Amino acid sequence: MSVLESEIRQQPQVLTTLLDEEAENAHRIAGDLQGRQVKYVIIAARGTSDNAARYGQYLLGAYNRLPVGLATPSLFSIYHEPPRLDGALVIGISQSGQSPDIVAVLEEAQRQGVPTLALTNDPDSPLAKRADYVICLHAGQERAVAATKTYTAQLAALALLSCALGDDPKRLAALRRAPHAVGRVLEQGELVAGGVVRYRYMDTCAVLGRGYNYATAFEIALKLEELNYLIAESYSSADYMHGPIAVVGSGFPALVVAPSGVMFDPMREFSLELRSRGAELIIISDRQELLAEAVTPLPLPEGVPEWVSPIVAVVPGQLFALYLTLAKGNDPDQPLGLQKVTITR
Amino acid sequence: MSVLESEIRQQPQVLTTLLDEEAENAHRIAGDLQGRQVKYVIIAARGTSDNAARYGQYLLGAYNRLPVGLATPSLFSIYHEPPRLDGALVIGISQSGQSPDIVAVLEEAQRQGVPTLALTNDPDSPLAKRADYVICLHAGQERAVAATKTYTAQLAALALLSCALGDDPKRLAALRRAPHAVGRVLEQGELVAGGVVRYRYMDTCAVLGRGYNYATAFEIALKLEELNYLIAESYSSADYMHGPIAVVGSGFPALVVAPSGVMFDPMREFSLELRSRGAELIIISDRQELLAEAVTPLPLPEGVPEWVSPIVAVVPGQLFALYLTLAKGNDPDQPLGLQKVTITR
Repeated sequence: MSVLESEIRQQPQVLTTLLDEEAENAHRIAGDLQGRQVKYVIIAARGTSDNAARYGQYLLGAYNRLPVGLATPSLFSIYHEPPRLDGALVIGISQSGQSPDIVAVLEEAQRQGVPTLALTNDPDSPLAKRADYVICLHAGQERAVAATKTYTAQLAALALLSCALGDDPKRLAALRRAPHAVGRVLEQGELVAGGVVRYRYMDTCAVLGRGYNYATAFEIALKLEELNYLIAESYSSADYMHGPIAVVGSGFPALVVAPSGVMFDPMREFSLELRSRGAELIIISDRQELLAEAVTPLPLPEGVPEWVSPIVAVVPGQLFALYLTLAKGNDPDQPLGLQKVTITR
Repeated sequence: MSVLESEIRQQPQVLTTLLDEEAENAHRIAGDLQGRQVKYVIIAARGTSDNAARYGQYLLGAYNRLPVGLATPSLFSIYHEPPRLDGALVIGISQSGQSPDIVAVLEEAQRQGVPTLALTNDPDSPLAKRADYVICLHAGQERAVAATKTYTAQLAALALLSCALGDDPKRLAALRRAPHAVGRVLEQGELVAGGVVRYRYMDTCAVLGRGYNYATAFEIALKLEELNYLIAESYSSADYMHGPIAVVGSGFPALVVAPSGVMFDPMREFSLELRSRGAELIIISDRQELLAEAVTPLPLPEGVPEWVSPIVAVVPGQLFALYLTLAKGNDPDQPLGLQKVTITR
C-alpha cells in the first residue's frame, strides 16, 4: 500500500484523536475570544489549507454569524502594506506551519494586537509561535506530498471551533460521528477503483460544488492536479454559470459534489443543466435520485448533516485521485515536480 | 468589426467619461463613509465582476488599509444564514445589477443598517435600488456576451473610490492617465493578432498573476474560456506553487501577467521556474528583460504605476482572446451556450 493510501485510511483515527484531544482546548479558546470583540475573521492559508479556509467561510458565517475573508498574504509579505485589523480574529492554517507568507500575516496581526489562532500539525512551527492560540491537528507525520489526513483534520478543527463558539453540545455530538462516516466511505474503495479506469486518458475536467462543499470541489480538483498531471478546474456552480460553462460539450467530465442539505436542490438542477449540455457526470452524493443521473456515481453514507458533510464528501475524491494515479501507472507518493513543504513569500 | 472588438476599443473613452463624471460623486461617498466607522469591506460579485472585486482587495487593502473579503452570496440567498455585518461596508458589483444572489447580499446589509455601495452599469437596476450609494460605470450598453469595457470601468470605479477615501489628488492624476495607456495597448492589436495564430489548437493553459494583477490573471482566463471553449486555469503564482504546477511540462502554455512594480521580481523568478519546467511563456509586461524570455511577448506601455496597471494589463489579454476566436473561425459576439445576463440564486 502506498503511503498516500495509508494516510487516507488513517483519517477516521486522526479525526477521532483530534476531536478527543482538542475539544477542551477549543472551548477554552472560544471562552477567551468572547472578551475580545471579534467582528469578523481573516484566514491566511495556501493550497489545501486554503480549501479548508473556504469551508470556514461558510461554517463560521452560518453558525457563528462571523463574516470570514481570505487573507491576501502578499499585502503583508511582499507589498508590506498590511490593512488595519482591529475587530478581526486572524487564523493561519498550515500543515507544516512553515510558509513565510502565512507566518507574515499572523506576525502583523500580533503586532496590531488582535487575536491570532493557528491550525497546524506542528505545534512547534513558526506559525504556531506567532499565534495566541493553537489547535493542533494530531494527524501524525504526513509523508505523502498530497495532503489528505491533515485536510480533513483542518476541517474538523474549524468545526470544533465553531461548536465551541456556539457552545452547542448537539452539534459537537454530530461532529463526533464524522469519523465513522469517513470509515464507511473508505469501505467502498474497490467500487471507486473500478469506476476510475474509465478516466485513464482524461486530461481535463471540472469539479463543482457550492456552499459548504465549495471547499470540497476545490480540494478534490487540487488532488487530481497534484497527482495526475491533468487540469481540474474548480468552481462554485454559480460562478461556473457566469462564463466557464461555455467549455462543456459532449463527454466533458464534470464531477459534482452534492450531498443532502439546503444546497442539494440547486446542485441537482445544476447537474441536470450540465447533462443537458452533454457533460459526463461523476456525482458524489448520498441521494439515489441524483446518483442515478451519473455515469460514475460515488455514493456517500446517509444521515450526515450538511455542515459536517465536507469532512466526508472529500474522501471519495481522494480515493478517485489515488486510484487514477495507480491506473496511470504512476507513483502516488512521488508526484513529479512537487515537494511536501512549499515555501512561498 | 465585431461588437466585442468595438467594445474593447471603446475602453479609453469609457474610462475617461467615468473618471470625469464620477470623481465628485466618489468624493461625496468617501466623505459620507468617514462618519460610518467602516472597519472592513465585503464585496459581492460574480464572474467578471468578481475579478474586479479581487483588484479591490489589494487596492483598498494597501492604500486605504481596509481588509476586504469576498462575500459568500449563498449564505444570504440560499442558506438564509447571513453573518452579522456591523463594521462592514458592503459593495455589490454587477454590470447588469440583476443577479438575485448579489442583490440579496445588499438587501441584508441594508436590513442590518450598514452602508452599501453598488458599482453597476445600470443605475435603475435592482442592485442600485438596494444601495445607499451608486457609482455608475458609464460604459454605454454592453452588447457582447464577454464583458470587457464594463470590467475596466469597474476597476476604475474602485480606483476612484480608493483615491477619494485617501483624498489623494496625486493618485487621482495618475489614474486619469490610464485611458491613454489603454489606448496605446489598443494600437498594438495587429501584433497580438499575429502572435495568436500559434495557439489555434491550444486546449488548456494557465494564466498567472499575483497581487494587483491576480485579478488580471483571473479575468484573462475567463475571457479565454467564454470565447474559446478551452480550459484556462487562473492562479496566484504562490498558490500555483502549492500543487497545480505539477501539470507544467514541455510546451505547456503559461500566460504570465508581470508589469513593473513591487511584484515584478517575484513574478520574474516564477516565470523562469515555469520555463525551466518546459512551459511556453506568454508574457504581459512593460519590462524588456522579461518579455525577452517569452515565446509570445505582449508588451505594455511603460510608466504605469502598479496599482493602475490592472486597468491596462488586461487589455492585451482581451485582444488575445478576441483574435484567438477569430483564428478559430468562431463568432466572438455569439459564444455558444452563454447569455449576457446570467441569473444565479
